[in-house]
Amino acid sequence: MNDAPARIGDPIESIDTPALVIELEAFEANLAAMARFARTSGVRLRPHAKTHKCPLIARKQIEAGAVGQCCQKVGEAEALVDGGVGDILVTNEIVDPRKLERLARLATRARIALCFDHADAVDAASKAARAVGVELGALVEVEVGMRRCGIAGGAPAVALARRIAEAPGLRFRGLQAYQGAAQHLQTRAEREHAIAAAADAVRATLAELDRAGLACEFVTGAGTGTYRLEVASGVWNELQAGSYLFMDTEYARIDGNAAPGRRYDDYAHSLFVLASVMSVPPGRAVLDAGLKSFSAEKGFPWVHGRAGIEVTGVSDEHTRLELSFAAPTLSLNEKVWLIPGHCDPTINLHEVYVAVRNGVVEALWPIAARGASR
Amino acid sequence: MNDAPARIGDPIESIDTPALVIELEAFEANLAAMARFARTSGVRLRPHAKTHKCPLIARKQIEAGAVGQCCQKVGEAEALVDGGVGDILVTNEIVDPRKLERLARLATRARIALCFDHADAVDAASKAARAVGVELGALVEVEVGMRRCGIAGGAPAVALARRIAEAPGLRFRGLQAYQGAAQHLQTRAEREHAIAAAADAVRATLAELDRAGLACEFVTGAGTGTYRLEVASGVWNELQAGSYLFMDTEYARIDGNAAPGRRYDDYAHSLFVLASVMSVPPGRAVLDAGLKSFSAEKGFPWVHGRAGIEVTGVSDEHTRLELSFAAPTLSLNEKVWLIPGHCDPTINLHEVYVAVRNGVVEALWPIAARGASR
Repeated sequence: MNDAPARIGDPIESIDTPALVIELEAFEANLAAMARFARTSGVRLRPHAKTHKCPLIARKQIEAGAVGQCCQKVGEAEALVDGGVGDILVTNEIVDPRKLERLARLATRARIALCFDHADAVDAASKAARAVGVELGALVEVEVGMRRCGIAGGAPAVALARRIAEAPGLRFRGLQAYQGAAQHLQTRAEREHAIAAAADAVRATLAELDRAGLACEFVTGAGTGTYRLEVASGVWNELQAGSYLFMDTEYARIDGNAAPGRRYDDYAHSLFVLASVMSVPPGRAVLDAGLKSFSAEKGFPWVHGRAGIEVTGVSDEHTRLELSFAAPTLSLNEKVWLIPGHCDPTINLHEVYVAVRNGVVEALWPIAARGASR
Repeated sequence: MNDAPARIGDPIESIDTPALVIELEAFEANLAAMARFARTSGVRLRPHAKTHKCPLIARKQIEAGAVGQCCQKVGEAEALVDGGVGDILVTNEIVDPRKLERLARLATRARIALCFDHADAVDAASKAARAVGVELGALVEVEVGMRRCGIAGGAPAVALARRIAEAPGLRFRGLQAYQGAAQHLQTRAEREHAIAAAADAVRATLAELDRAGLACEFVTGAGTGTYRLEVASGVWNELQAGSYLFMDTEYARIDGNAAPGRRYDDYAHSLFVLASVMSVPPGRAVLDAGLKSFSAEKGFPWVHGRAGIEVTGVSDEHTRLELSFAAPTLSLNEKVWLIPGHCDPTINLHEVYVAVRNGVVEALWPIAARGASR
């Protein structure tokens, strides 16, 4: 890890920049709000660790009631188990025999499940589990409108579930049904329509699984943009949201919002890239953070807590701000808080969270699974 | 560092994915072509390490004739000096006193210069250099059309140069003049116009520096998209290009090109994200690499070496391919080579280059300055 940008007890003014900062008050409120929703709704919460990539945060979610963690990659699962997480669902297809072997070894230390959309992967995972002498949980991923991975609902999904049920070393647990394309649809009506269609595909599959005598314990899925709809449908019994902890401009823009300052659902922005002013040309300012401190494929970051300042350009290590006539000027080396466009790939650029409360650095949380894409 | 995705001597088929791969034949040809251009043009080459972030590659460039390296951040400079590079220009403003102190300490081990566009930073750097007892090279960054950092050419630039010349611990070396906004202009005429305007601003400043009796050793700047124009102008005597080593789709698109397979200038694609097929729904395929393995703010990656396949979606850990009717289908776990949209932020996601030649892994090069944005 590169040197941390702050020490515990430092005032925020002395944090070295760029730095990835968590405002703990908002973070803890977000954490509690989703835990409360799951508890009162009677559904399981298994938050997605691809967002935070941090075993310490995973354990906070579990202490608040989550049943475990989701992740996308075997490397993430390894980092989570190393960090004390005991129940992990890889919400993804793993087909490489070496990766399946790593996952089977991990199952000697934790409860591990993964997803399938192809019979060949079932055979490969069964072989890996038998070789290590473990049981891997197995879910069939149903394609519910995202056009990414997943097998068609109904007969194809049931045939794959049967293959899993008959494969030594695997245990059929249920269905993975995530409509990722619905998370950022702009209107509630669009999101409702997308999740209703996904629910229909799952219901049809559940009915056929029932006729086939295959017990389906879990229907798992949902993200921060739609989780209330999945629960309202009555079809899902496990939620995988992750971004709710942090939020970003992509979520803040839902429902046509186009400026910072508004909350989305129960969640406030708790994640920021802290930057410093490094140049003050007339009418603008340049910050010392760019594409290597935040991802911009979902648009430029927003400036937090200041009016009259617009981000008009980003490059590898710079962000250009244009100041309106009425905006107070910025000083050289002054701190500016940026709200990232997309939280997950932004976090993956950093090695540590600087967690602050009331203007003071309270904790440094290593992002142990940063870069763990294999 | 996470476990490397390959071992030296492995066939490329066994590289674990996602992985950042350099094709050595193309890489070495790119390295040699720019070195040859600089040599025959009689200009100094100081390639930008913000692209490669790898001291081993820096040393290859220096062995081929480069005078040193550019970088953007103090952390990058530290990694380069640790890796044996002895002459570094930070092509950027450094204004934080702690960062200036680190830079001054680094100047006890290597020749270090940096850029200025504000008198306060001159005073702060002078103080840091005196405190450590070193001399820092100092360049005035002139705003030449990028609208990022830099001071206006002419009298303001000369006043700042004079302040540098009078500041103990600093030595005025010349002008930083980089027209970053010109690098990816689509037509040669647009690029020529932008660099001609930049050259005019520099010439006017040089004339005033001369009248003021301030010797200007270097005019440094230029990128892969325009370096021939800077040299042709007769104004620049040092080139800072970096992307020429690798190329990406953003450079390949210059002059209206919209598909892979074409060379830009003397340079071929040498940098790839190697991915594996993880799902094969009808008519498409899904790869195991996404926004955490390549940056996408300049567009989706291209598929290398295969016709009839289009990238139609990317998410954190997935790339969706749509296969044309005529394209051969892809198999589960098959390797696919992706050309990144933007090389610099893509490299910053990885911890090691897998360097291959003739289908075999020849070397693993640590990306020592990955994440060194402070």
